Amino acid sequence: MCATVHWATSFLFTEYKYAGGFMTVFAVLIFVFLGSIEGFSTKSQPCHYSVGKTCKPALANAAFSTIAFVLGAVTSLVSGFLGMKIATYANARTTLEARKGVGKAFIVAFRSGAVMGFLLAASGLFVLYVAINLFGLYYGDDWEGLFEAITGYGLGGSSMALFGRVGGGIYTKAADVGADLVGKVERNIPEDDPRNPAVIADNVGDNVGDIAGMGSDLFGSYAESSCAALVVASISSFGINREFTPMMYPLLISSVGIIACLVTTLFATDFFEVKEVDQIEPALKKQLIISTAVMTVGIALVSWLGLPYTFTIFNFGAQKTVHSWQLFLCVAVGLWAGLVIGFITEYYTSNAYSPVQDVADSCRTGAATNVIFGLALGYKSVIIPIFAIAFSIFLSFSLAAMYGVAVAALGMLSTIATGLAIDAYGPISDNAGGIAEMAGMSHRIRERTDALDAAGNTTAAIGKGFAIGSAALVSLALFGAFVSRAGITTVDVLTPNVFIGLLVGAMLPYWFSAMTMKSVGSAALKMVEEVRRQFNTIPGLMEGTAKPDYATCVKISTDASIKEMIPPGTLVMLTPLIVGTFFGVETLSGVLAGALVSGVQIAISASNTGGAWDNAKKYIEAGASEHAKSLGPKGSDCHKAAVIGDTIGDPLKDTSGPSLNILIKLMAVESLVFAPFFATYGGILFKYL
Amino acid sequence: MCATVHWATSFLFTEYKYAGGFMTVFAVLIFVFLGSIEGFSTKSQPCHYSVGKTCKPALANAAFSTIAFVLGAVTSLVSGFLGMKIATYANARTTLEARKGVGKAFIVAFRSGAVMGFLLAASGLFVLYVAINLFGLYYGDDWEGLFEAITGYGLGGSSMALFGRVGGGIYTKAADVGADLVGKVERNIPEDDPRNPAVIADNVGDNVGDIAGMGSDLFGSYAESSCAALVVASISSFGINREFTPMMYPLLISSVGIIACLVTTLFATDFFEVKEVDQIEPALKKQLIISTAVMTVGIALVSWLGLPYTFTIFNFGAQKTVHSWQLFLCVAVGLWAGLVIGFITEYYTSNAYSPVQDVADSCRTGAATNVIFGLALGYKSVIIPIFAIAFSIFLSFSLAAMYGVAVAALGMLSTIATGLAIDAYGPISDNAGGIAEMAGMSHRIRERTDALDAAGNTTAAIGKGFAIGSAALVSLALFGAFVSRAGITTVDVLTPNVFIGLLVGAMLPYWFSAMTMKSVGSAALKMVEEVRRQFNTIPGLMEGTAKPDYATCVKISTDASIKEMIPPGTLVMLTPLIVGTFFGVETLSGVLAGALVSGVQIAISASNTGGAWDNAKKYIEAGASEHAKSLGPKGSDCHKAAVIGDTIGDPLKDTSGPSLNILIKLMAVESLVFAPFFATYGGILFKYL
Repeated sequence: MCATVHWATSFLFTEYKYAGGFMTVFAVLIFVFLGSIEGFSTKSQPCHYSVGKTCKPALANAAFSTIAFVLGAVTSLVSGFLGMKIATYANARTTLEARKGVGKAFIVAFRSGAVMGFLLAASGLFVLYVAINLFGLYYGDDWEGLFEAITGYGLGGSSMALFGRVGGGIYTKAADVGADLVGKVERNIPEDDPRNPAVIADNVGDNVGDIAGMGSDLFGSYAESSCAALVVASISSFGINREFTPMMYPLLISSVGIIACLVTTLFATDFFEVKEVDQIEPALKKQLIISTAVMTVGIALVSWLGLPYTFTIFNFGAQKTVHSWQLFLCVAVGLWAGLVIGFITEYYTSNAYSPVQDVADSCRTGAATNVIFGLALGYKSVIIPIFAIAFSIFLSFSLAAMYGVAVAALGMLSTIATGLAIDAYGPISDNAGGIAEMAGMSHRIRERTDALDAAGNTTAAIGKGFAIGSAALVSLALFGAFVSRAGITTVDVLTPNVFIGLLVGAMLPYWFSAMTMKSVGSAALKMVEEVRRQFNTIPGLMEGTAKPDYATCVKISTDASIKEMIPPGTLVMLTPLIVGTFFGVETLSGVLAGALVSGVQIAISASNTGGAWDNAKKYIEAGASEHAKSLGPKGSDCHKAAVIGDTIGDPLKDTSGPSLNILIKLMAVESLVFAPFFATYGGILFKYL
Repeated sequence: MCATVHWATSFLFTEYKYAGGFMTVFAVLIFVFLGSIEGFSTKSQPCHYSVGKTCKPALANAAFSTIAFVLGAVTSLVSGFLGMKIATYANARTTLEARKGVGKAFIVAFRSGAVMGFLLAASGLFVLYVAINLFGLYYGDDWEGLFEAITGYGLGGSSMALFGRVGGGIYTKAADVGADLVGKVERNIPEDDPRNPAVIADNVGDNVGDIAGMGSDLFGSYAESSCAALVVASISSFGINREFTPMMYPLLISSVGIIACLVTTLFATDFFEVKEVDQIEPALKKQLIISTAVMTVGIALVSWLGLPYTFTIFNFGAQKTVHSWQLFLCVAVGLWAGLVIGFITEYYTSNAYSPVQDVADSCRTGAATNVIFGLALGYKSVIIPIFAIAFSIFLSFSLAAMYGVAVAALGMLSTIATGLAIDAYGPISDNAGGIAEMAGMSHRIRERTDALDAAGNTTAAIGKGFAIGSAALVSLALFGAFVSRAGITTVDVLTPNVFIGLLVGAMLPYWFSAMTMKSVGSAALKMVEEVRRQFNTIPGLMEGTAKPDYATCVKISTDASIKEMIPPGTLVMLTPLIVGTFFGVETLSGVLAGALVSGVQIAISASNTGGAWDNAKKYIEAGASEHAKSLGPKGSDCHKAAVIGDTIGDPLKDTSGPSLNILIKLMAVESLVFAPFFATYGGILFKYL
């Protein structure tokens, strides 16, 4: 346990060193690009949208955007670090509580997840609110500039998520795949066995990848959708008439969300008690339903109290009249779409239902059919989530333009604390099991932690569904804010610029996934060689009389994750800058839209395919039904085929799939931050051709 | 051999029975939908685009569209059938020639492919030309109506391609996967061994899926891009001024293409002689380069002689001035983009280069890493083809709007005869090998046919690259023609209708692939059970003293392909009708654009991933280098892992990947044919909300 904490902390510090370097370079870039718009002039300028008024100089916006960027990045890093600390301590406590029974262990694991969830949601909200007020001291009446600068906060949060999701994802899966391929497949030793040299790296990976990565991803979404909503609001009637309370509507939604989630957690830990193993999954699922129901009331209250009955929203060049109940519908549709996505994800990835059972059944004819069925399942699982997202976009877009989409995203994210609690619960239980195994604790305790873990697996998939769904809404909202800020009123597919943007944008998720998948593959190959080397050269390792060299395995994962995240990171960070500068804002709009509509599909299908393979394997291992027994036991040909599927699914569900969230969000928020620059200097290739 | 011909013919007749039923129903649908526009009135109407003139009634357009539809469908069926007949006879002749040497066998296989290619290209062109002239007898001066009705020809050709590609694809891969899983993996008998009960079904599948399916796909592309170009031309200055020669420019391009390909084939069969095995692949690749070079001259001539120096092209509501050399550039960029795509496809799927060798190398650590690396390779292989397609779209779109895109597609397809020759060559050689094995011919002959086959594998991948690339251009051209015909001038992503269309459209390829993949999986499971049953219950089968029951296996493939193609077929055929009728032309535009930009990526990656796995396996089997030897021999753990990859790749590269061509093209051409109806009655849901 101590080793895990030590290595996880040490990895995060290495990662943060690089993140710090990146942050410095990018902060300079933001300042120079945005400052150059008015030639670094310190004179005030006429406003863009508030006709006749004077706004602060572009140089000030550049400086404050840079500060906001750094603030967002640091907040994300600190929350990720604290979350990871909480999780690593919770691992051990859960193992200890498991001696007393399943119920006690569940409460510890769940509460730890909840602490993390609340920490992230609250710190994100708090820093944002403080920043707005502090920036306001300088900006005074110039809300246009103020909220334009605030978007840097979203960019900061999201670019750290790049490190968390992509770097963490490569780390955890290189270790996991490497440990499994030699330990489980070749040497036939159980998962988390201390004889496996990669076991520590694997446990560290769960913490840095699944917990810190997921946290920074959702934090980024949250910061971005708030910023997108604020930017659009600042050029709507709230901003023009300087109405501070409705202006803060996006933050109010999130605040009420925290309270709603707080109430909801009591249902899992205090009002009802989990006593049996089979009560765990229902208890977690109830959390989602209760928080959604409570939150619906919360939104209604906030919309009723915080908003004027009628106001106008900026709609690509025009102002659109909106009523407060319409905004309530926008937030609510996002919230409920999230629930639908969560449950559909569960249906396709839990082994209680036929899709995963069919995949397990296809293992009868070997690994090939398992993979074919798994891929088909992932593709199919895209259908309903996309319809749910499309419906919420249609409703919120029609009612309140891009502001509607932004608050719909906030609606989906308003139960983020519960979502994170449920999500973090998974890796905490997983690692509790690892600790029990490594500490040589009794079989009964391991059984209990396994039961906790099994429930966590499904809920982790639900968490990923939420993350992707909200990423889609957030990106669209950012896209809308970018388009508004860049002064575009139409993005016409029937122009060559936009169409090729769309086509190339739709290709980017493939390019990005190729990089992340191959990174995991290469790193895993190195890990396999090292683990094999240790088993072959360290005498007494298999017998348990000698200790493996954990540190080398940790180093392989660390080095791989740092080195391998550079190409995909560069792709994400440079694409908007290159396209915007050379091809202009229309082509960039096409790229963003293309990446969004294509990326969300791959993200959902990759993550569900991986989840399904994982649970198909667990289904065969558990042998809980006649059907499952006929496929098992562990070690049978069917089970071996299922293990192959599970291993393929690892990078899909934990690296390349979730990393796509970052791709689509980060490109959009970066475009938004640089929009003033692109609008002024962009498209130089077409200007000179 | 006789058995293969017999069963292939019998399958095609079964398929055609269903195709006939479908054709009848859909013909009625076209007539009723299009006839209803003016309430089945028989009175002439004022023209849409030629202001002040009178055009034929909508009822006449409905009737002629229906006739054109049936013509296109029948031409496609007849060419597919004849092509398949040629191929099945060529199989046996190639085997016999292989006794004399590799060179002779190559000439027979290649010439047979070429005959098929010319047959398809020429019959498509001939029927289209005759139809235009016959329809012209009625339409006289009304070219708007004439070329609107002619679009039915493209729809007919393309909907038969649905049967060929999807039905044929399911047939061939169910048989192939089923035969391999039991024969090669479980029973350890060689490929095409006559003891395998599924071997005949497998050989039949090569003919009906790879040859007839590919042929109907490319025929559809060809008919559709001609129709798209003609529709746009009819409302441009050619059509308005009734200039017949430039009006026929698209057909002239294709005619010159046939001549260029004819000249090119002489280089493979007459000017140079293939004597050694290692000359085959270069000879086939030279075909592509020579035909492209010759064709460039041909396009220049046609553009110089057939076009006025200046003319105008319809550009979404406006007329755009274009010069003949600009149109030359449009066609040429399509042609050369095709070549680029072909060579990139080769790079990623041939085992002469590092990508496939890396995939083979990853088999060291088992099937899981093989799959991870293979998927990553497919994703990566999308990048350059998409840039090539994007560049040709940008150039042709900028120069001559949608007419430019349509002729760029025709440029890519102008070497269709060579493409098909090279492509059909593959399955012909493959089956020649099968016949040699089944007839118990000497080892030396089998070695020769294997060498022919190995070259064919790579060129088949190139053919698929062409098919996908041209499908992308064709769909865009059809999309443009649809938009023009529906009277839309902008497709604005910043409206909720279009955006959700885009999102849902991008999802359709996943839905469709889920269906086709699962179909192959389920059919293969049935096949496996039957083959296992026969091995277990027929005494003396393994010893070769008893004959297997081939007929039952053929029946399983036939039934599966007919039954399983209904859901994906319904999805493709109904989506445009439902979206257009209920949500209107804007949403439909979004759906078409989304399906196009998303589908082309999956199609390329699926087909290249599959090709790479296939050749990685062959690389290990051949053991031609030190590296390859270290992974082999046949039967080693590495080889087993490679076989799993190959099996997964089968449905990807031969069913779900290529079927996506049909999805994107067919939805677009159907929308085009029904455009007048949608423009009049479409979007009823929004009208009443």
